[in-house]
Amino acid sequence: MNTFGTLFKVSIFGESHGNSIGVMMDGVPAGIKLSEEDFLDDLDKRKPKALGTTPRKESDYPHIISGVFNGYTTGSAIVVTFENNNVNDKDYSNLVTQPRPGHSDYTASVKYKGFNDYRGGGPFSGRLTLGFVVAGVVAKKILKNINITSELVSIHGNTNKNEFEEEVYKAMENRDSVGGTIRVTAHNVEKGLGEPYFNSVESCVSHIMFSIPAVKGVSFGVGFSGEKLYGSEYNDLIIDEEGTTRTNNNGGINGGITNGNDIICNVFIKPTPSISHPQETFDFKKNEISTLEIIGRHDSCIALRAKVVVESALAIALADLYLIEKAYK
Amino acid sequence: MNTFGTLFKVSIFGESHGNSIGVMMDGVPAGIKLSEEDFLDDLDKRKPKALGTTPRKESDYPHIISGVFNGYTTGSAIVVTFENNNVNDKDYSNLVTQPRPGHSDYTASVKYKGFNDYRGGGPFSGRLTLGFVVAGVVAKKILKNINITSELVSIHGNTNKNEFEEEVYKAMENRDSVGGTIRVTAHNVEKGLGEPYFNSVESCVSHIMFSIPAVKGVSFGVGFSGEKLYGSEYNDLIIDEEGTTRTNNNGGINGGITNGNDIICNVFIKPTPSISHPQETFDFKKNEISTLEIIGRHDSCIALRAKVVVESALAIALADLYLIEKAYK
Amino acid sequence: MNTFGTLFKVSIFGESHGNSIGVMMDGVPAGIKLSEEDFLDDLDKRKPKALGTTPRKESDYPHIISGVFNGYTTGSAIVVTFENNNVNDKDYSNLVTQPRPGHSDYTASVKYKGFNDYRGGGPFSGRLTLGFVVAGVVAKKILKNINITSELVSIHGNTNKNEFEEEVYKAMENRDSVGGTIRVTAHNVEKGLGEPYFNSVESCVSHIMFSIPAVKGVSFGVGFSGEKLYGSEYNDLIIDEEGTTRTNNNGGINGGITNGNDIICNVFIKPTPSISHPQETFDFKKNEISTLEIIGRHDSCIALRAKVVVESALAIALADLYLIEKAYK
Amino acid sequence: MNTFGTLFKVSIFGESHGNSIGVMMDGVPAGIKLSEEDFLDDLDKRKPKALGTTPRKESDYPHIISGVFNGYTTGSAIVVTFENNNVNDKDYSNLVTQPRPGHSDYTASVKYKGFNDYRGGGPFSGRLTLGFVVAGVVAKKILKNINITSELVSIHGNTNKNEFEEEVYKAMENRDSVGGTIRVTAHNVEKGLGEPYFNSVESCVSHIMFSIPAVKGVSFGVGFSGEKLYGSEYNDLIIDEEGTTRTNNNGGINGGITNGNDIICNVFIKPTPSISHPQETFDFKKNEISTLEIIGRHDSCIALRAKVVVESALAIALADLYLIEKAYK
Repeated sequence: MNTFGTLFKVSIFGESHGNSIGVMMDGVPAGIKLSEEDFLDDLDKRKPKALGTTPRKESDYPHIISGVFNGYTTGSAIVVTFENNNVNDKDYSNLVTQPRPGHSDYTASVKYKGFNDYRGGGPFSGRLTLGFVVAGVVAKKILKNINITSELVSIHGNTNKNEFEEEVYKAMENRDSVGGTIRVTAHNVEKGLGEPYFNSVESCVSHIMFSIPAVKGVSFGVGFSGEKLYGSEYNDLIIDEEGTTRTNNNGGINGGITNGNDIICNVFIKPTPSISHPQETFDFKKNEISTLEIIGRHDSCIALRAKVVVESALAIALADLYLIEKAYK
Repeated sequence: MNTFGTLFKVSIFGESHGNSIGVMMDGVPAGIKLSEEDFLDDLDKRKPKALGTTPRKESDYPHIISGVFNGYTTGSAIVVTFENNNVNDKDYSNLVTQPRPGHSDYTASVKYKGFNDYRGGGPFSGRLTLGFVVAGVVAKKILKNINITSELVSIHGNTNKNEFEEEVYKAMENRDSVGGTIRVTAHNVEKGLGEPYFNSVESCVSHIMFSIPAVKGVSFGVGFSGEKLYGSEYNDLIIDEEGTTRTNNNGGINGGITNGNDIICNVFIKPTPSISHPQETFDFKKNEISTLEIIGRHDSCIALRAKVVVESALAIALADLYLIEKAYK
Repeated sequence: MNTFGTLFKVSIFGESHGNSIGVMMDGVPAGIKLSEEDFLDDLDKRKPKALGTTPRKESDYPHIISGVFNGYTTGSAIVVTFENNNVNDKDYSNLVTQPRPGHSDYTASVKYKGFNDYRGGGPFSGRLTLGFVVAGVVAKKILKNINITSELVSIHGNTNKNEFEEEVYKAMENRDSVGGTIRVTAHNVEKGLGEPYFNSVESCVSHIMFSIPAVKGVSFGVGFSGEKLYGSEYNDLIIDEEGTTRTNNNGGINGGITNGNDIICNVFIKPTPSISHPQETFDFKKNEISTLEIIGRHDSCIALRAKVVVESALAIALADLYLIEKAYK
Repeated sequence: MNTFGTLFKVSIFGESHGNSIGVMMDGVPAGIKLSEEDFLDDLDKRKPKALGTTPRKESDYPHIISGVFNGYTTGSAIVVTFENNNVNDKDYSNLVTQPRPGHSDYTASVKYKGFNDYRGGGPFSGRLTLGFVVAGVVAKKILKNINITSELVSIHGNTNKNEFEEEVYKAMENRDSVGGTIRVTAHNVEKGLGEPYFNSVESCVSHIMFSIPAVKGVSFGVGFSGEKLYGSEYNDLIIDEEGTTRTNNNGGINGGITNGNDIICNVFIKPTPSISHPQETFDFKKNEISTLEIIGRHDSCIALRAKVVVESALAIALADLYLIEKAYK
């Protein structure tokens, strides 16, 4: 169940403190130039370096272990792995005793009957988004002409970009965290991708966006704020024979199908639940509510690092729809 | 590509003005009591009767044509059809000449190279949501204990329920339309449904929600407005050994897995694009922008009728996750 | 679980004595000329008329209820139904009391806990192969250049075609039945269809062949008799730059991928289990072994009628592989 | 497209001379005891040691890189890899110039436009069956009570086991190869696995059997030789209230569903195409037919080593059907 896609199939695997984590990509056409170096730029964007991100050193290198030969994709499944080198041996059993609120500690323990690898969040670790980034690089190569960009449009409900740093700083000071919203846009999109109902562009894109840990809201075009518009304002009037629209409130999608205008998707990343701020939550050993202080350095705003992950997710969904459409054309 | 689900598989089919529309449900366990009458209550909720909905007469009756024997499901695929009786013979070719903005008229024509059944929106017609409602009834029978309710939380950006009628009335007067947001809740949910990443509850639920025509935003728990909270406020503290949380900002889902609290999902329905208000949009025959007035009576606020559809969609997604979890337990 | 295919998806539904049986085809490209009349020739080939087939009158007519508009496919799901008109009201409960050996009566009753529609075999009825034939017609239109033929190569182990009639006649006389083997061939096949391992041509073709009731063996090229050859005899030597091979022992497939030579598939149809010959089998009501005589006229050799079904199955599998390959090219 | 299964999903990856080959298993329930040592016995059975198998040293060790924690499965995807250590640097470009008859050299080159990794057969190498064996071990743990055995029933068309060695020896002497047939049996099988049509036991089992390189025929029960029987002889009479049958000509499956008797499946493995015997086949560089002598030691009868692979394939298919049935019960 950890696979996304019909023709471009992406599966991620691994646990934060296991041997390796990685990604399998199946259905990549043969003959695409690809090397390990091709992943480095996007992987770098995901690294914690900005204000409010974990200052921990990560020296992750992507190992292509199959599917590439002489610098080109072979048509076989591509597997890329990252070793979990900097894994410490500290005791994580407290995550079972007193599950961190807002995290998967409790649900994973119930679902997997206590057999889950709880160390560092196990398979739920944000570390597994390395796989999204790698698959995103390949997806963008499949898409060729489509260009994907993103911007952080708000942090802690504040849309003034000049105050973003301050918002994060305030959260850090309180050993707390803030969420944010990323707007991701696909430019130069082919018309006709997606299908009505269960393969609508919105269905497929939201599916993968909500697979990114901490995403709690997805909307297209003007999103929820479009509710304030009358139909006559919301409707995107077509202004030329190419189907260009005057506005793009629908985010480039009508009836689940791309209309050739930019695809616009808004993704809400919740405030990271890992905070060192004390929290009064249940302790299953003591069988009572007790104060939890999560020790260690944490991202105060994961939305800052999530941009490239969200871009990758959009690329993956579109690459799959692109291949499907190619089959039917 | 018009199928949703892994074990409880739902496919919808048909075009608004073709012979019939309907739904196929595969993977329904044998031995569930089911009759055509069981669908009528929910189908009735979808009927246009409130202020701002189409006053057109619909006398749709669900015909079970397979999968039920002696009043019980047989374990074989269940197919339910609705005849398209009240289909008029008027000329719809204007939808090709001057595609309605905000509708699928243009994208469908491009994607299907002009072969699509454009009459009344063809397969994109809201009429096909009859299939969601039918499948929702079956899904709720599979789920047994889970109870699903919904409420309209805002119309035209207004959250004051006393003013909903007024908002719709104003739109009607202007031959315009308004959108709204539905909050749908699943009560008494089993813990452990869903999986990290590509089978997360949010991924599966959003997938089917965005398959409903006119849905443009989906969020869970407090949704996008949760951005205003600090992590320390957003985190749902666990307060007892059953995993009950003090707040439910995460909407009952952590790490993609249900935590036993209510699943809360917010669904934004855009203002219906069908308005008789004049619109300046491209005419592909005249090859110029020209005024379009869509004739006929239209829903001014489809959000009013969409509640049961949204509830059905949540039921379908959960029924599938429920069967999957049963396999692994 | 009653769906075959990745891009050309075929689902069959219905029970022999229910309201209707039928087939849904999803993923049919828009713009293919298609009418109900197009199905009649192949449906006719499946009708019982030769020696040894049921003389019962079947006046089945295929109703297209969605997916076709103005004589062309629309790109939406195509559903075709057949009404179950000549359903008699006789009591079939004996199939539960004393399940027919070699039939699904017993396994269906166990699997579906007695809720299955047992009348006339319910969903297991050979009648559902009408859906294969309908989907086969559409598949052949998708395939365009590929031409599919078949021949009965043996009956009751006898490969002398002149004696086929006699073999069937002998079985009829004894109120018994005989099996046979059909060799189905796809001519003019594109190179490069299929993939190694789980999407090999052999995997996909055998999957659908074994979905046809009564099929108990599938082989490719020379089949099991190829065991008598040495590798030096079995290997198909390539004789020109087009990849033409001198022999075709591999049945046109190497490494799971078509090599441009004819695809040859051998399908063994077991002797139909419905015989009026007395059989000593368990009676679950009496709780003892007891003589069963199945009343009514039966096919003595269903292999005679199965040719068009087997051809259709090959067409369906190849149409799916053809669309997949188109995506990756 | 290299994934098998609905709930127990198996994907294999890698190329013979790339970095690693391996297998991903998704949908393994949490809490199953599993270690790398558990794979060794079955991996050993696949090793070349008998007469007629490659005497090459293989020291393959299975590395679990995810999905196991503290000796138990975690519920997350399990990935097992094998390093390709003994890869030589010899020039394999002759496989492109003069593709080996009966091999995938030619079809792979056409399909992947020359980008395939042709060294040692690349992804088509029998080496990838290591993944089947690993997944088979896990499948057998999921199945618990089901026990799977196999025997070689014929070599080179000879069913006299005493002469098997001689048959292989003769082939070896002529630098040639022979094929064989393996009968694989699942004992103690639960009733009710599988479904009519596209999820029939025969469909699923044959699908994965034909995914094993060199398999060219699959049948159930008495197989093709059952053609010689009349229906009255072929039908398996039920002899007790447990559904035990007197004969098992149907191989434990009726209507695509297990009936509780042994599942019997016959798998024909063609003579390995890799022979050093000279072959007159096309040379694409010289553009003429030319003698090919494949240098090196080869298996003279891969059927000898394939037993454990065939057993594993049956286990994988049954484990998937078992989990599916568990969901519906």
